[in-house]
Amino acid sequence: MNQENSQKTILALLRSALDRWCKGDTFGYADLFARDATYFDPRTETRIERSAAVQDHFRQYYEGKINVPRFEMPNPKFQLHGTIAVLTYNWYPFSGDGERLSGWNATEVWQNSDDQWKIIHGHWSLVQPK
Amino acid sequence: MNQENSQKTILALLRSALDRWCKGDTFGYADLFARDATYFDPRTETRIERSAAVQDHFRQYYEGKINVPRFEMPNPKFQLHGTIAVLTYNWYPFSGDGERLSGWNATEVWQNSDDQWKIIHGHWSLVQPK
Repeated sequence: MNQENSQKTILALLRSALDRWCKGDTFGYADLFARDATYFDPRTETRIERSAAVQDHFRQYYEGKINVPRFEMPNPKFQLHGTIAVLTYNWYPFSGDGERLSGWNATEVWQNSDDQWKIIHGHWSLVQPK
Repeated sequence: MNQENSQKTILALLRSALDRWCKGDTFGYADLFARDATYFDPRTETRIERSAAVQDHFRQYYEGKINVPRFEMPNPKFQLHGTIAVLTYNWYPFSGDGERLSGWNATEVWQNSDDQWKIIHGHWSLVQPK
C-alpha cells in the first residue's frame, strides 16, 4: 500500500465527513465506522461497540445539534503498520466570529479491507486547560 | 501469533505497570511506550510524541501524586490485526473507603516487534456523566 495515497484517501474521507458533521449531519462520519468498530467519547459511559451503536449514539447526542462554520485539524499524524493506520489529530471548531469553541483530541484506528478504509476504533476527548 | 497468549501478555504487562502507577510510580507505565509512540490525555494540549516526552509528561503531572489502593478495569477488549492490537477499557480507581474516584476511557494501540509488545499510541480521557 502506498503510504502517501493511504493518507490522502483517509484525510479526504474524513474531511468530507467532518464537513457534514459541522452542518449537523452525523451520518457521514458514522458511515466511516467498520461494522465491528469500538468507540469512546465524553458522552459514552462505557465503550460503544459496532457501527450501528455508534450511529445511534451520534443520532442521540449530536444529530441536528451542531452548526460549526469552520474547523481546523492541525498537524494530523499517521502511524502506518500494514493494513492498519493510527491517525491522531487535534480538532478545533470555530464560531462565525472566529472564536475557538472547544478543543478536541482525536484518535482513529483505520483498517484497509477490500481496498476500503474504515475506522475500527475512534476515541474523541476534550482538551482540558491546565 | 497466538491471540490468547498476546492478550495475556499485554494484560500482565499493563496490570503490573498500573499497580506501580497507583503507588505514584509512573515509570513502569512510561516504559511500555515505544520510542516513536504518540499520546493524548486531559493534561496534554496537543499530541505528545516519543516515549521520552511521554515519560516527562507523566513525571510532571503524576509522579508521586497518585495513591490509589485499588482499581478496576472491567471488560477490556482486544482488536487484533497482525502485529497490532487495539486494546480498549474503562479504568476506575477507588479510595480506601471503596468510593469510585473517577472514570476513564482508555485506548492503547500495541505493536509486537522483536517478540515484544509496546504501546505505539495511548489515549486516556475522563468519562463525563450525562
